[in-house]
Amino acid sequence: MQIYNAPLKDMQFLLETFGYNERINSMDAFKDFDLETLMMLMEQSAKFCSERMLPLNRVGDVEGVKYNPETHEVTTPEGFKKLYQEAVEQGSVGLTFPEEYGGVGAPHLAGVLLSEMATATNKSFSMVTGLSHGLLDALLAHGSEEQKQRFAPLLTSGKWSGTMCLTEPQCGTDLGMLTTKAEPKDDHYLLTGTKIWITFGEHDLAENIVHLVLARLPDAPEGIKGISLFLVPKFDFDGTRNPIYCTGLEHKMGIHASPTCVMSLEGAKGWLVGEPHKGMRAMFTMMNAARLLVGIEGVSLADISYQTALEFAKDRRQSRSLDKSKRDPDAAADCIMVHPDVRRMLLNVKSLVEGMRGLAYWTGFYLDISHHHADEDTRAEADDIVALMTPIIKSFMTEKGFDAISEAMQVCGGAGYTTDWSIEQYMRDSRIALIYEGTNGIQALDLIGRKLPRGNGRLFMRFNQLITDFIKANKEDERMAEFLNPLKDASKKLGAATMGLSMKGMQDPEEAAAVASPFLNLFGYTAVAYVWCLQVRAALDRESEGAFYATKLKTARYYFQNILPQINALVPIIEAGKANLMDLDISEF
Amino acid sequence: MQIYNAPLKDMQFLLETFGYNERINSMDAFKDFDLETLMMLMEQSAKFCSERMLPLNRVGDVEGVKYNPETHEVTTPEGFKKLYQEAVEQGSVGLTFPEEYGGVGAPHLAGVLLSEMATATNKSFSMVTGLSHGLLDALLAHGSEEQKQRFAPLLTSGKWSGTMCLTEPQCGTDLGMLTTKAEPKDDHYLLTGTKIWITFGEHDLAENIVHLVLARLPDAPEGIKGISLFLVPKFDFDGTRNPIYCTGLEHKMGIHASPTCVMSLEGAKGWLVGEPHKGMRAMFTMMNAARLLVGIEGVSLADISYQTALEFAKDRRQSRSLDKSKRDPDAAADCIMVHPDVRRMLLNVKSLVEGMRGLAYWTGFYLDISHHHADEDTRAEADDIVALMTPIIKSFMTEKGFDAISEAMQVCGGAGYTTDWSIEQYMRDSRIALIYEGTNGIQALDLIGRKLPRGNGRLFMRFNQLITDFIKANKEDERMAEFLNPLKDASKKLGAATMGLSMKGMQDPEEAAAVASPFLNLFGYTAVAYVWCLQVRAALDRESEGAFYATKLKTARYYFQNILPQINALVPIIEAGKANLMDLDISEF
Repeated sequence: MQIYNAPLKDMQFLLETFGYNERINSMDAFKDFDLETLMMLMEQSAKFCSERMLPLNRVGDVEGVKYNPETHEVTTPEGFKKLYQEAVEQGSVGLTFPEEYGGVGAPHLAGVLLSEMATATNKSFSMVTGLSHGLLDALLAHGSEEQKQRFAPLLTSGKWSGTMCLTEPQCGTDLGMLTTKAEPKDDHYLLTGTKIWITFGEHDLAENIVHLVLARLPDAPEGIKGISLFLVPKFDFDGTRNPIYCTGLEHKMGIHASPTCVMSLEGAKGWLVGEPHKGMRAMFTMMNAARLLVGIEGVSLADISYQTALEFAKDRRQSRSLDKSKRDPDAAADCIMVHPDVRRMLLNVKSLVEGMRGLAYWTGFYLDISHHHADEDTRAEADDIVALMTPIIKSFMTEKGFDAISEAMQVCGGAGYTTDWSIEQYMRDSRIALIYEGTNGIQALDLIGRKLPRGNGRLFMRFNQLITDFIKANKEDERMAEFLNPLKDASKKLGAATMGLSMKGMQDPEEAAAVASPFLNLFGYTAVAYVWCLQVRAALDRESEGAFYATKLKTARYYFQNILPQINALVPIIEAGKANLMDLDISEF
Repeated sequence: MQIYNAPLKDMQFLLETFGYNERINSMDAFKDFDLETLMMLMEQSAKFCSERMLPLNRVGDVEGVKYNPETHEVTTPEGFKKLYQEAVEQGSVGLTFPEEYGGVGAPHLAGVLLSEMATATNKSFSMVTGLSHGLLDALLAHGSEEQKQRFAPLLTSGKWSGTMCLTEPQCGTDLGMLTTKAEPKDDHYLLTGTKIWITFGEHDLAENIVHLVLARLPDAPEGIKGISLFLVPKFDFDGTRNPIYCTGLEHKMGIHASPTCVMSLEGAKGWLVGEPHKGMRAMFTMMNAARLLVGIEGVSLADISYQTALEFAKDRRQSRSLDKSKRDPDAAADCIMVHPDVRRMLLNVKSLVEGMRGLAYWTGFYLDISHHHADEDTRAEADDIVALMTPIIKSFMTEKGFDAISEAMQVCGGAGYTTDWSIEQYMRDSRIALIYEGTNGIQALDLIGRKLPRGNGRLFMRFNQLITDFIKANKEDERMAEFLNPLKDASKKLGAATMGLSMKGMQDPEEAAAVASPFLNLFGYTAVAYVWCLQVRAALDRESEGAFYATKLKTARYYFQNILPQINALVPIIEAGKANLMDLDISEF
């Protein structure tokens, strides 16, 4: 059972709610993309995702990728080559990049929406273009004009694809330990080392592959401050094979159609991007966009799982409604949608999906503003919000998204555990999102260690002010009270936790690190509650326009009554601090 | 990476803590099994599980089972046949069955311990003997003496294996709708119908397979009260092939080495077990044991995942300790065991595993007592505890166990997502336990709909009295306060929720059904907290005996500070009731 109805209506509602035309379309960079234009693009993409990407999703899982150790070549599943050509023709690789480099010039937000649909319908496949986006972000931010002119059009046109080569066997989280070497030669460098976890490091979809490689120059300082960035193509511009080879594939729980490669660089030719030794700083500038997109993976696969489970539940008849008036006299059993527990599971997923989607798009607004607004202060303010929300979105949404997929499987009973209903693949494919692009634990440390202290807590205060302002502006509306009161409570708890964390963390960083993950989740639930309130406000204002808005209110109500109370569990855990973790000797584990 | 150290020390500690020799060994039925004898048996089994079962676990996953549609035969993975013979020789099939039927006569508790180790090391394989146990339970409780003599020794000796044929395509949860027919002929019946989800319905491990089939007699009343039980062998005693065929296998997320069969009965010969139309009642008498064993699956796979993650964490070096005194000056990075967040993940798993294991064994004590104690009142009281705890153990432990496996995977980062570290298989294999043997949602309805109302709340009051008595007996010990206070709080919340549920449920059953699942989890956390307190008491009394007991206290402390607070999230959800679930029209989902 493979179905997907792109959430176009919800997308449009959210973009309207957050003021797309006033805030994004009004900026010079995006004057060609009013909401109508954007949604037309999305409709077209939705059709492509449902009709072309989804049918190859299961095929990709079963067939997987194949590696030939003789030739170091990787073969993608049947049909993927054609799909890649079609995706390229749709313009999906260059969507959010400037026209001067062969792109379409759409806002990042469009990329978020497209990415949601692509991940939902074929996560493995969507990763190849996802990696090209990552490389383009880095190249356009830090490459020389010559490098941009040379490489970018090849990537936006899909002729070449990109990769990110960061991790090495001895270091993932701790990139300061990386040892890949870059020796200068003529106008370029020769790179030697081994990289692992390289997504689409080798494949047969594009003519060529260009790798963005982290390596050390001979005079590099030790640690994280001695890392430089290089562009290393598989084939040089003259067609010469560059000695960067795939030497093996990982065998994984999911994303079977996405090759995860070990790459061996054996004196491979590369060009330095940006300044020497400043590679990590360059990587950080593009992480916000990348991590936002990983966060959205939680939403997308939870959404398609929800739709699949709903299809099952509407069809399945089992047992009788406890409410006699709802029993179907013409059948031996009732549709399981009458059972409260089935509804509970479905609403757990639905209220999280719509809430988290809201948070991702809301942050996506600030991402575009942070890059393109005419006013510097506005850009800086927006950047604060993005920087603060990035680790939360990446970690909270992938974790809750994975749990939600498991809940959707549960709706289908035994059928959900079989490959017939696809949810088991969505679950396997989604699990990696909690790990890659910085594990969720690392996101939590980023939040408490970098984002909270920045500017003496400026980022948090900015976010908190938004909530305060919203509550103030809406407190007279009685219909808002059932949402505003729990938001107020959550924001108070978050404020207290933030303060407590800062105090303890100043004296002992381990105290803060010990509760970073539960703190991040407290923040996540609160942020989603805030964005749910924005949706509620819009839904109340538009209640007369149709049933969609009444349903929004009910879904929001479920979030506040059944999901948000999770914060009550997190507060005492945060208060408990580090003692119960650190008191054990390693031998006691 | 495949490792497993059977938790023999923890097993022994728990059996001592709950008073094995005084409470189990003292009963006539188990006078040959003192703790020392039992633990010797378990040591032997542990060796077998680690050395023989575990090495075939991954093989089974990769190779899976093969179905031949021409012959209707199912082939198990390489090595499984030999393994089956060895397991049979170990006496593991007949362990907990009376010697007069070829068994070993050990208490059910021994079966729980053995099952934990077998599931941890090869869940797929362990299911074939698990099904034989289920059939033996039903046969010995409801079969005629002639049937017992005829079938039981063939099963305890492993010559035959057993299955349970309940589900049909149109009914799983709602067995009242089943349509398989049994027509009388001579001294037996001819059965016709289709059964699905039949675990080891066909395989090549044993000489013969006997199916326990639910079907309707011609004069059967409609619904659940018209179901009878039949024994249907694949081959009759004279060797004739009985027309009960496997017509296909399910393709599943996990347990690939365990065939899940569609079975077609085409006038298959069967014998009635027990009284006509009383089949469901007979099934219920054996469900306690079966559901306890499914619950333990959550513990077992979480435990082996924990051990695997711990092995990884002790070996992996990444980043520096925040506490400078813990830094290793001789290495470029520290062992990740120094990082608080890594410890947090590990302790989330460890404290749940040891707590849930405790609850399962504690209930296992009552199961043996309920069957074998000389005093009728004591048996009845024990049966109350078992009946109450069964749905909680099945649902809570499989759900939290699955989450714990995911947490263990997270410890390993990217490596955890690969097949190299096995956790991904444990996760896939464990997910079915939330669904089969009555979905977790059904367990919650069993708890609130059958177990709470029974005897006007007698079961709950009995359990509650145990907590009250324990608190009273220990309140003078200051060292207990940090555990007793949260236990008291949890038990108060549970009491209030139980009362509220009963009141609301009387007026409107949907109100109770709507919150049955969160209520079950509230009960689960509280029950585990109680059993943790029993462990704490024993650990305090034995603190001088070694480090094991000090670690117990630390692990308990973690449970009370970091896991038990989940109940704070559940209480408001339970109080919210049904409105937010039932207010949505089906079209609004």
